[in-house]
Amino acid sequence: MPSSNQLSNNDPASPSSRPRIRVAVVGATGYTGAELLRFLVAHPGITLAGLYAHSKAGEPIASVLPNFAGVLEGNFEPLPNGAIDADVVFLALPHGASAPVAKAQRSFGKVVIDLSADFRLHDLATYETWYGSHPAAELLGGSVYGLIELHRDVIRTADLIAVPGCYPTATLLATSPLVKGGFGRDLIVDAKSGVSGAGRSPGASSHFSETSEGIRAYKIGGTHRHTPEIEQELSGLAKSPINILFTPHLIPMTRGILSVAYATRERGSVEELITFATKMYAESPMVYVHQTPNAPIDTLWVRGSNRAHLAFGFDPRTNRFIAQGVIDNLVKGAAGQAIQCFNVRFGFEEESGLPVVGAFP
Amino acid sequence: MPSSNQLSNNDPASPSSRPRIRVAVVGATGYTGAELLRFLVAHPGITLAGLYAHSKAGEPIASVLPNFAGVLEGNFEPLPNGAIDADVVFLALPHGASAPVAKAQRSFGKVVIDLSADFRLHDLATYETWYGSHPAAELLGGSVYGLIELHRDVIRTADLIAVPGCYPTATLLATSPLVKGGFGRDLIVDAKSGVSGAGRSPGASSHFSETSEGIRAYKIGGTHRHTPEIEQELSGLAKSPINILFTPHLIPMTRGILSVAYATRERGSVEELITFATKMYAESPMVYVHQTPNAPIDTLWVRGSNRAHLAFGFDPRTNRFIAQGVIDNLVKGAAGQAIQCFNVRFGFEEESGLPVVGAFP
Amino acid sequence: MPSSNQLSNNDPASPSSRPRIRVAVVGATGYTGAELLRFLVAHPGITLAGLYAHSKAGEPIASVLPNFAGVLEGNFEPLPNGAIDADVVFLALPHGASAPVAKAQRSFGKVVIDLSADFRLHDLATYETWYGSHPAAELLGGSVYGLIELHRDVIRTADLIAVPGCYPTATLLATSPLVKGGFGRDLIVDAKSGVSGAGRSPGASSHFSETSEGIRAYKIGGTHRHTPEIEQELSGLAKSPINILFTPHLIPMTRGILSVAYATRERGSVEELITFATKMYAESPMVYVHQTPNAPIDTLWVRGSNRAHLAFGFDPRTNRFIAQGVIDNLVKGAAGQAIQCFNVRFGFEEESGLPVVGAFP
Amino acid sequence: MPSSNQLSNNDPASPSSRPRIRVAVVGATGYTGAELLRFLVAHPGITLAGLYAHSKAGEPIASVLPNFAGVLEGNFEPLPNGAIDADVVFLALPHGASAPVAKAQRSFGKVVIDLSADFRLHDLATYETWYGSHPAAELLGGSVYGLIELHRDVIRTADLIAVPGCYPTATLLATSPLVKGGFGRDLIVDAKSGVSGAGRSPGASSHFSETSEGIRAYKIGGTHRHTPEIEQELSGLAKSPINILFTPHLIPMTRGILSVAYATRERGSVEELITFATKMYAESPMVYVHQTPNAPIDTLWVRGSNRAHLAFGFDPRTNRFIAQGVIDNLVKGAAGQAIQCFNVRFGFEEESGLPVVGAFP
Repeated sequence: MPSSNQLSNNDPASPSSRPRIRVAVVGATGYTGAELLRFLVAHPGITLAGLYAHSKAGEPIASVLPNFAGVLEGNFEPLPNGAIDADVVFLALPHGASAPVAKAQRSFGKVVIDLSADFRLHDLATYETWYGSHPAAELLGGSVYGLIELHRDVIRTADLIAVPGCYPTATLLATSPLVKGGFGRDLIVDAKSGVSGAGRSPGASSHFSETSEGIRAYKIGGTHRHTPEIEQELSGLAKSPINILFTPHLIPMTRGILSVAYATRERGSVEELITFATKMYAESPMVYVHQTPNAPIDTLWVRGSNRAHLAFGFDPRTNRFIAQGVIDNLVKGAAGQAIQCFNVRFGFEEESGLPVVGAFP
Repeated sequence: MPSSNQLSNNDPASPSSRPRIRVAVVGATGYTGAELLRFLVAHPGITLAGLYAHSKAGEPIASVLPNFAGVLEGNFEPLPNGAIDADVVFLALPHGASAPVAKAQRSFGKVVIDLSADFRLHDLATYETWYGSHPAAELLGGSVYGLIELHRDVIRTADLIAVPGCYPTATLLATSPLVKGGFGRDLIVDAKSGVSGAGRSPGASSHFSETSEGIRAYKIGGTHRHTPEIEQELSGLAKSPINILFTPHLIPMTRGILSVAYATRERGSVEELITFATKMYAESPMVYVHQTPNAPIDTLWVRGSNRAHLAFGFDPRTNRFIAQGVIDNLVKGAAGQAIQCFNVRFGFEEESGLPVVGAFP
Repeated sequence: MPSSNQLSNNDPASPSSRPRIRVAVVGATGYTGAELLRFLVAHPGITLAGLYAHSKAGEPIASVLPNFAGVLEGNFEPLPNGAIDADVVFLALPHGASAPVAKAQRSFGKVVIDLSADFRLHDLATYETWYGSHPAAELLGGSVYGLIELHRDVIRTADLIAVPGCYPTATLLATSPLVKGGFGRDLIVDAKSGVSGAGRSPGASSHFSETSEGIRAYKIGGTHRHTPEIEQELSGLAKSPINILFTPHLIPMTRGILSVAYATRERGSVEELITFATKMYAESPMVYVHQTPNAPIDTLWVRGSNRAHLAFGFDPRTNRFIAQGVIDNLVKGAAGQAIQCFNVRFGFEEESGLPVVGAFP
Repeated sequence: MPSSNQLSNNDPASPSSRPRIRVAVVGATGYTGAELLRFLVAHPGITLAGLYAHSKAGEPIASVLPNFAGVLEGNFEPLPNGAIDADVVFLALPHGASAPVAKAQRSFGKVVIDLSADFRLHDLATYETWYGSHPAAELLGGSVYGLIELHRDVIRTADLIAVPGCYPTATLLATSPLVKGGFGRDLIVDAKSGVSGAGRSPGASSHFSETSEGIRAYKIGGTHRHTPEIEQELSGLAKSPINILFTPHLIPMTRGILSVAYATRERGSVEELITFATKMYAESPMVYVHQTPNAPIDTLWVRGSNRAHLAFGFDPRTNRFIAQGVIDNLVKGAAGQAIQCFNVRFGFEEESGLPVVGAFP
C-alpha cells in the first residue's frame, strides 16, 4: 500500500481558522506572473487583492492570460500612486523597474516579495558592475536572498525578499553541498534552459522557426548576469571568494533548467557527497536527492512542480565531481519559489498552494 | 480588483468533517495512471488505498513514475484475486483487460470508474463491430457514459462509470450544441492529438525522430474506434441515428487535442449557436464557451487543466458551421474526467482536486 | 539491385556546354529567400548575379543567413533604380511590395519570377476583395500561375510567373484530380502548416513558448487570403465556379504542410480516383501518388525536398472522398517551386538544382 | 555582388569523363543509411550497385524509407556470402556486426568505408575495455580514422576507413586546435545531441512523450564509448596521453550536436587561438571558424549540411578557454563524413554530392 508522505499537498488543513492574507501582484501579464496567479488562486490562505500591470492596464485578464478565462474576471489595473491595498505585494517586473515600486510599498509597510534581480546582490559594487546604477541601493542591506533551502530562518522574518533567478536556483541547489562540504569548489557550470526563461516579448532568439530544432550557448565567456548571484551565495557558504565559469544554453523546449556543474575533487567520495547533500536538504520538502551516483535526471520530471531533483556523480579518470540539478524555471525558478517564500514568511506549510508532483509527461 | 469566481480550486472547504473515501487504482503505470495519481494525492477527500499493476508489480512507484520520487513511497502491488480493499476502484487498463476486473470488483460491491473503452458503447453489436467479442457484456446495460456535461444526473448514482475517450470528449463537447440545438448534424470532424494519446509503449509511430517535425493523419476513412462513441452520444441527442466522418491526426506535441467539426447549417446564426452552447454549459464549471464567433482557441490554454474551451464559427461562403473544442487529452480527456466523475458521484465539488487553470505556457 | 529512376538529381549533365543564366534575387533575407539561395548556388546552369535587400542592405550575407558563412561572401545590396543586371529576377518580397519591382524590371525586359501574391489572381475584383487596390493591375493579364503540374506548357514561354502560395500548392495538387475527374467538388479543406510559413519577423503567434506544444486554427470562417487562389484554379479545372471552406492551422513544427480535403462523392471509386490522379501526374517528377487507399502520408517525408506526396481515400459511411497532400512549405510551397518554374521556363530538367529526396528524419 | 566561393556545390564539373565508381551500402535501413543513400543518388561520380539489409531484406526500399518513394525502385537485398559486386562498400551496421563483413569484403579487395565503431580505436586493449572482444582485431592496424580534417593524407590511400562517431567529430574539430597549439588540454566536454543519434529502434529514451520538452544528461561519469576515440586522437596531437571528462546530453530535437569544451589556459590569447584554428582548417572546406571571440553558434545553421561551425572563447575570471563545435550528427557526424572520405579516397572534390549549405530554418 502506498504511503503518501507528508510532502503531498493532500492536506491543506492549515489555515481554515485564520484570516486569509491579502495579496497583490504587480506585473502579472508575463509568464512568471501567470504562474504566480495560477498558484495564488489555488492557495488556501490567500485572497487575491489586486492585479496591476503597466502597458496592459485596462485589458481583461482573460484576454492577456487565456488560461484564466472563466476563472478570473475583471481587468488588469494601473499601479496606484500610493499604498497598494494588500498585506503582501509580489513584484514580477523587469530589473530596474522593480526597485522603485519596492521602495514605495516598503515605505507603506507592505511585505514585498520581489522576483526581479534588483535586491539579490548584497554588494552594491557588484550590482553596479553587472547592472549599472541601483535605483534604491539603500534597501540592499535589508533584503534577504529568497532561496528557502539556504536561508529559511531569516526569511521567516524578512520584509523584502529577493527571489533568486532560475539559473541560480538550479545551480545553487546542486553545488551548495559540494562547496559547503568541502568536496570541491573549482566550478564549471554548464546550464541548459527552456525558452520561457527569455520571457514573453517576441524576438529573434525566441522565434519558433529559429529556436525549435536547434541548440546554442549564449553569454559565453562568463558574461551572464546570474553569475554574481551564484558566486555570492557560494562564497558565503565557503567563507571565501569563489569564482565560477558559467555558460547558459537555450534548449528547444518551453520549461525546465538542467544545471550541470563540474568540480575538481578536493576530498571525499561521491557516496559521502550524496550523504552530505541528503542531510543538508533533509528538512527541505521541495528538494529530492537521488541516491544513485551518476543518476540521470530529467527536467520532464519536475514540469509544473515546485520541486528540484538533484544528483551527484564522479569521473574517476579526471578526478572530478559532477553535480546536477533540474527545476521548472517558471515554478521553483520563479513563481513557485516566491510562493514558497510567502509560505515560510507567513507560517504556512512550505508546499501550500504549490504543485509538488510534476505533470509527467 | 479581480473577482475570482467559484471555479477556482481555492476552497477545498468541503470535506474536513466527513471521512475520506478510500480509493484504489489498477494500472497506474502509464500516462493516464500517472495523472490519476497526481490528482488523487492532491484530493482533499480521498485516501489512496492501493496501487496495482501487472507487469510492473513489485517495482518502486518512484522508479516507474519519477515525478513521484519523494512523494509516494512503496511499490506497485499485484492485483489481488478477491475484493480490492477500497471503496472505489479506478481502472486504467487497456480495453479488454478492464472488463474482467470491473466485473469482479462490481460483484464485491465496489464502485468502478473505468477509463478503458469496455463499457462506453451501450449496444453490444456496435461494440463487436469495432472491438470484437465483449468479455462482460452483461454489464453494458448498467454502465453510464461518464461525460459529466451530458450525463451529470445519472452519474450521481452510477456504480459503473465508463469514462469517455479523449477524442470523443473534445468532439462531443464541441458538437453537442450543434446537434442538440438543431443547428447542423452533417458532421465532418478533423481532430488533432498530441502524442501522449498513443500511450507509454514505445513504437515507430511515437519515436521522437519520426514524430517531431512531422504531421500525419491516421485511421483515415472512418476507421478509428472512437467514432462509434461519438455517434452514440450525438444520436442520443438528435434522437435519430447520426453518422460522422472522423479523421484523427498526430501532432508533434505531447498533450492536447483540438477537434474541429464542420457541419452544413440547417438553421440559426452563429450568434444563436453561441448563445445556445453557453446556456447548455452554464452549470458546467469545466467548460468555457468563447463568445466571439470564429475565435481561435489553443490547446496550450488548457495544458494540465481539466477544462475544455469551445468556440463556434460560420463560413458564409459555404453555409457551414465550424465548432472547435480543445482539452488536455490526459486530463479532461482521461484522468481528470475520471476524478470529475468521482466528485459528482460522491458529492464533492466538481473541481475538487482538479487543476482548473492550465499551466501556460 | 536498386534502380534509381530518372528523378534523382544524379545527372546534372545538362548544361556544361550552354552559357549559365544570370540570376538576381530581391528580398533574399527571409526564409523563402534563404532557400532560394540554397538552391541557386547548387544549380548547374545559374550564375548568381545579385542579391538585393531593403532594410538589410549593406549587411554581410553571412550575418543575416549564417548557414551561408564561408559560402557566400559579400553584402546584400540595395535595389538599384534601373534595370537589374541579370537575365532573371526572383522576387521574394511581401505582397504589395513586389508589384512595383516586377513592373519596373519587366519594362527592362527581365523575366520575373515572383513569389508574392501580387500576380496570382487573374481577376482584379477578386484581388481587390482580398488584398485591396493593386499596384500594377495592368500586368495581371500577362502573368501565369506557376503551378507547374497544372500549367507546364504556358510556363515555358511566360515572362511573369506568379509562384503559388504554400497552402494552395498542397491543396491544389491534392484536390485537382477530384475536381478535374468529376469525382467530387463540394470541398472542405482542413490544412495544417509549420510555423515557418509565418515568416521571419518575430511575433506573438510565432513565439516559441506560445507555439511549441500547442495547436490552433486561425482565419476561421473562410477568411484566409489563399482561399481565392485555390478557388480560381479549381474553378478553371471544373469550368464553373467553385467555393471551398478553407481552415488553416498552425502546427508546432518548423516546416511542412498537410492539406486534407473532404468532398462528397459524385461519381467513381477511390481506386478510380487514384488511377486518375496517377495518370494526371505521370509526367510530373515532383509529385508522387500513393497507390493504397487511405494511406497516411507525413510531412516528414518531404522535408527539404521539392516533392509532394499525395494520397486518396474514401469513407463509405458518409460517402465522402478524402484527399491529402504534403509538401515542404518553403520548398515546393515557395522557393523550390520558383526554381522549378525557372527550370521549365529555361529548358532545364525540371529537377535541376532541386533536392528530390527529403532529409529523413 | 555576391562572390560564391569554391565551396559551393555549384560545379560538379569533375567526373563527366571518368567512369562512375560502383558503390554498395550494407545496412541502409536506419537513419545513417538513409542519409548515405540521399547523398549517393545525388553524387555525380557514383553508380549505386547494391543495397543490402538484414531484417528488412526483401522489403521495398520505399516502404522502409518513404522519402525515396518514386526515386529508388526495388527491394533491399540480403547480404551475399561472397564478394559484393561493387568497388566500394559502405557499412552502416551496429558495432560488432560490422567487423566480420569488413573482413570478408576486404579479403575480396573491396575498399571498405565503415560507419561503425569497430575500427576506430587503434589499440586493442582500449577497444576491449570499452567494447569487449574484437571480431577482427587483425584489421585494426590497417584502418584509418576517417576524420578528414586531421588525416586527409592517409585517407587518400586507405582501403579500410573508420568513419568517426558523431560526438567525436564535433568535439575533435573544436578541441584539436586547443591541444595541437598548446593552448590547453585539461578538457571538460559537455556535449548535446539531438535524438536521431539514438538510432531508429524505438525505446523509452527516444519515446516522443518522454523526450520532447525535457533534457537530460546520460552516461554520466565518463562512461560513454565515444570517450576513448576522442582521447586517442587528442593524445596523438599532443604526443602524450590525454584524459577528458565527457558528458553527453539528449536534447529535444532530431538533428544536431553542440559540443562545448572547457580547458584551463596554458598559453596564448583567444585571438591567437582563433588564428591558429583558422590556419589549421584553411584547406578544409567543410569547417568554418568564426572570427569573433565567444561567438554563439547554433546547430540550426548546419542542419542537413556536411559542414562544421567552430567558435572559440575565453573566460578571464577563471582563465579558461571555451571551444564550441556544431554539426549535423547524421551528416558530418556520420553519412556525409563517409562520403567526404570517399571523395578524398577517390580523388573527387571534397564536397562532391554533399550539401554544403544547411537548410535554414
